[in-house]
Amino acid sequence: MNFGFLTPENMALLTDLYELTMADSYYRAGINDFTTFDLFVRELPENRNFLVSCGLEQILYYLENIRFSKDAIEYLRSLKIFSEEFLGYLKDFRFGGEVWAIPEGEIYFNQEPVIRVTARRIEAQIIETFLLNIFNFQSMIASKSARVVLTAKDKSVVDFSARRDHSTDASIKTARASFIAGCVGTSNVLAGRLYGIPVIGTMAHSYVMSFPNELESFRTFAEHFPENTVLLIDTYDVIEGAKNAIIVAKEMEKRGYRLRGVRIDSGDLAELSKKVRKMLDEENLNYVRIVLSGDLNEYKIEELLEKGAKADVFGVGTEMGVSKDAPSLGGVYKLVEDKGGPKIKLSTGKITLPGKKQVWRVVKDGIMIEDIICLEDEPPPSKDAYPLLVKVMDRGKVIIDYPSISKIREFCISNYSKLPEEAKKIRGEKWDYPVKVSNKLRRMTEKLEKMIHYHQ
Amino acid sequence: MNFGFLTPENMALLTDLYELTMADSYYRAGINDFTTFDLFVRELPENRNFLVSCGLEQILYYLENIRFSKDAIEYLRSLKIFSEEFLGYLKDFRFGGEVWAIPEGEIYFNQEPVIRVTARRIEAQIIETFLLNIFNFQSMIASKSARVVLTAKDKSVVDFSARRDHSTDASIKTARASFIAGCVGTSNVLAGRLYGIPVIGTMAHSYVMSFPNELESFRTFAEHFPENTVLLIDTYDVIEGAKNAIIVAKEMEKRGYRLRGVRIDSGDLAELSKKVRKMLDEENLNYVRIVLSGDLNEYKIEELLEKGAKADVFGVGTEMGVSKDAPSLGGVYKLVEDKGGPKIKLSTGKITLPGKKQVWRVVKDGIMIEDIICLEDEPPPSKDAYPLLVKVMDRGKVIIDYPSISKIREFCISNYSKLPEEAKKIRGEKWDYPVKVSNKLRRMTEKLEKMIHYHQ
Repeated sequence: MNFGFLTPENMALLTDLYELTMADSYYRAGINDFTTFDLFVRELPENRNFLVSCGLEQILYYLENIRFSKDAIEYLRSLKIFSEEFLGYLKDFRFGGEVWAIPEGEIYFNQEPVIRVTARRIEAQIIETFLLNIFNFQSMIASKSARVVLTAKDKSVVDFSARRDHSTDASIKTARASFIAGCVGTSNVLAGRLYGIPVIGTMAHSYVMSFPNELESFRTFAEHFPENTVLLIDTYDVIEGAKNAIIVAKEMEKRGYRLRGVRIDSGDLAELSKKVRKMLDEENLNYVRIVLSGDLNEYKIEELLEKGAKADVFGVGTEMGVSKDAPSLGGVYKLVEDKGGPKIKLSTGKITLPGKKQVWRVVKDGIMIEDIICLEDEPPPSKDAYPLLVKVMDRGKVIIDYPSISKIREFCISNYSKLPEEAKKIRGEKWDYPVKVSNKLRRMTEKLEKMIHYHQ
Repeated sequence: MNFGFLTPENMALLTDLYELTMADSYYRAGINDFTTFDLFVRELPENRNFLVSCGLEQILYYLENIRFSKDAIEYLRSLKIFSEEFLGYLKDFRFGGEVWAIPEGEIYFNQEPVIRVTARRIEAQIIETFLLNIFNFQSMIASKSARVVLTAKDKSVVDFSARRDHSTDASIKTARASFIAGCVGTSNVLAGRLYGIPVIGTMAHSYVMSFPNELESFRTFAEHFPENTVLLIDTYDVIEGAKNAIIVAKEMEKRGYRLRGVRIDSGDLAELSKKVRKMLDEENLNYVRIVLSGDLNEYKIEELLEKGAKADVFGVGTEMGVSKDAPSLGGVYKLVEDKGGPKIKLSTGKITLPGKKQVWRVVKDGIMIEDIICLEDEPPPSKDAYPLLVKVMDRGKVIIDYPSISKIREFCISNYSKLPEEAKKIRGEKWDYPVKVSNKLRRMTEKLEKMIHYHQ
C-alpha cells in the first residue's frame, strides 16, 4: 500500500517536468543570468471583487528548504532525459534569490505582482509550479472565506470542510487560509496541531442514533464534556430536540455547568433557529448559542440573516473548502526582467507588465481609493499611498520575523475595514477596483510592445 | 517557517474534532459494539452520468497504519477536552476492522455502497473524515477525467494541472486519479516518482523568450533533448513557429533524430492545428505529433474534434484538476448496522439503506443493464450479474494482492466499454442508470422507517 506523501525531501520534485528540462537546457547553454518573475492574477475570478494574499509562509518554507535528494536525482536519472552535468548541478541546488511579497492577509487585485522573485534564471524557473500551486490554492480559499466572514458580520464562522476538500493537504491549508480570513476555528484537528488554530466540534447524527433515544444521547455527552457540549438537535425532530436540549441544559446548570450550544443541520434554518432561540430564551437559556450548518455559503448566510435567523455560529464546509462558485484561481508566474532588461510576454494578447515593480495603495479617510502599479524606483505616487510589496527574503534566507497566524488574521481583518462597500457586495454586477499603471511603466510597456512587433 | 506536512505519524489527527469527542464518549459509556458503515454518494453530481471508484489504495494504507503518536496524544491532552482513559486507549489504537470495496477503476452509481466498513464503533467512527476526504477527491477527479478521456477518443490526454490543483497533495492525487481514468501521463514529476506514472513535458513561453529568437530556442532545446523535444510554437506566431519547427525537425533528421511534437497553447486551436498538420505533412513530417493545450475540458475537446482539429495529444489542466463543472463530490459515511441490527438514518428525508449489502451488476451483450443493491446474504439476482464489492481487508490487514496502477488503469479502461452510450454523453439531459433495490432490502427499509416513526 502506497500513500504518496509529500515530504521535505521530495518536495523539489513537485514541479512540472518542463521546468526541469528547461533548466537543464539553460544550464548546458550557459544561460543563468539574474531574472525577475512576477506571480500575479490577470483577472479576478467570477464572483470576486477582491482577493486576499495567502500562502506566503509555505512558499518561504519551500524556498529555504528545497533540495534535490539522492533519491530525487536517481529518479530523474532513470527518466533518461537529463544531462549528467545538470544532475550534478542539482545535487547542490539551493534557492539563493530575493523575494518581495504582498504580506499574507493583505488585499490585492488583478495585475498586481503579489510575489516578485529575483534569482538566477534556473532557480527562478524550477520553483514556478510549486509557488503557483501553493499560492493559487490558499489565496483562493482566503478570498472565498473573506466573503463568507464579511457576510456573517458579527456571527462566527467555523471551517467544517475537511471531508470534501481536495485531498489531505487541502484540508489543512483550507483551515489555515479560512482562519486567516477571519474564521474563528476549524473542525480539523491536524490543522489545530500544525498551525495552532482553535479546533471546534459538536456531534454527528450517528452519535445520537447510537443511544436508545435522543435525550439519553444528550445526557451522556453532557456528562462526558461538561465544558464543551454542543448538542445536535435535528436527528429526529428539531423542536423535540430543542426540548431535550433544554432538559439537559437545566440538569447541567444544577451541576454548575452551562450548555454551550445546539446545532441545527437541516430543514428551514431561519424558521427553526427563531423557534429554538425563543424556546431557549423562555427558559432563561439565553447563553446557549445556536450553530447552523448544512451546505452553507455566503449567499445562504445572507438570506438567513435577512430572514432574521437566530444564529451565533455558522459551520461552513464544502462550499468554502472548494470555493465552489470559483473553484480555481488563475495566478501566473511570468518573466518580467532579465539581463537584457525589462521583458513582456505578448502571446495571444496577454500583456505582462515589464520590469521590477512596486504596488502603491492610496487610502483616504480609511478607505482604499486606488492602487497604482509603478516601477520599483519611482517615488510614491501620492502622500496617502503606501507600498504593498515587502522584501521578505534575501539570498535565499527569510529576513523578516514571520508573524504568527493570529497576527496575520488580525491584519487581514483590519484590512476589511478599508474595503469600499461595493467590494464587499456578494451579488450583483461585477465591480472593478481602480488598479492603475504609472505613466513611466505604461511608456515602458508600450515601447517594449513596439519592439517585439518590430522584431517579428 | 512552518509548512505543515501530513506524515504517517500525524495523519491520525486529520479528522474532525467531533469524531474524537464522540469516540471518547462511546469509550466512557462502554459503547463499542461491532458496527457497519457505508461510504456512498446519495446523488450523482451535476453533469455526471457515472462515477469511477478511486482512492482505495490510500484508504487501505491509512487503515493499516493509523496510530496516535505521543505527540498527537499530547496535543489532544492540551485541548483539555478528552478523558485520560480515552487518551490511554488511543495510545494503542489500531484499526482492526473488515473492509469491502468496489475496486478502484470500477464504475459505480448513486446509493451504492462503495466502501463498507465493519469494525468496533470507535474504530469505525474515528476514520470517517479521512476516508471521505480521500475518496471524495480521487473519485471526483477520476470521474471527471473519464469524461475527458472518453471524449478525446483515440487521442491521448495528459494531466497538466499541478499549478492549479488544490494544494500539493491534490496535485499528486490528481495525477494518480486521472492516470487511472485513462490519461497517458502527467507533467507532475513527484507523481511520477511516487506512483510510477509516465511524466511528460514540453517547454514554456519563457524558454522561447530567453533566446534572441524562436529558431535559436528551438535549436538549442532539440540539441539538448534529441529524443524528447516537443516545441511550443505559439509564443509569437503559430505559423512562423511551425516554420521554425520544420527547420529544426529537418536538422534533427540529418542527425538521425526525430522531432516528437509541436504544441499550440493559444488561438483558434482547430484552425491552427489543421494548418500546422498540413505544413508538417507537406514536409514529410507526418510523425511529428501535435499537442493542444490551454484551458481545455471535455466540452472544448468535443468541439475541437467536431471542427476537425488535428490533435494527437490534449494537455488538460485546471478544468480536470479541480473538476471545475462539479468541484465537489458529496460522498457520505453512514451507520447501517450495529448490535441492535440494521439501522437507517431518517433526518430530513434522506434515507440510508440499512444492513450489510452487496451491489450486483447485470451485464448483457457486454453492456451494463442495471445494478441491484441487495442484502449481503441474498443470492445473485440473475445469472448475468456479478458482485461489485470485494473483501479487501480483514482484521485490519489488507488481504488482496493490491494491483499496480497500470493494472488498475487497464481495468478502468476495460469498464468504459461496458458503459451504455447514453452514459458517455457529456451534454444534454441528465441520464439515469437503473440502480435498483432488492425486494428484501426494500421491505427491511420500509419496516425500519415505520419503526422509527413509531419510536418518535
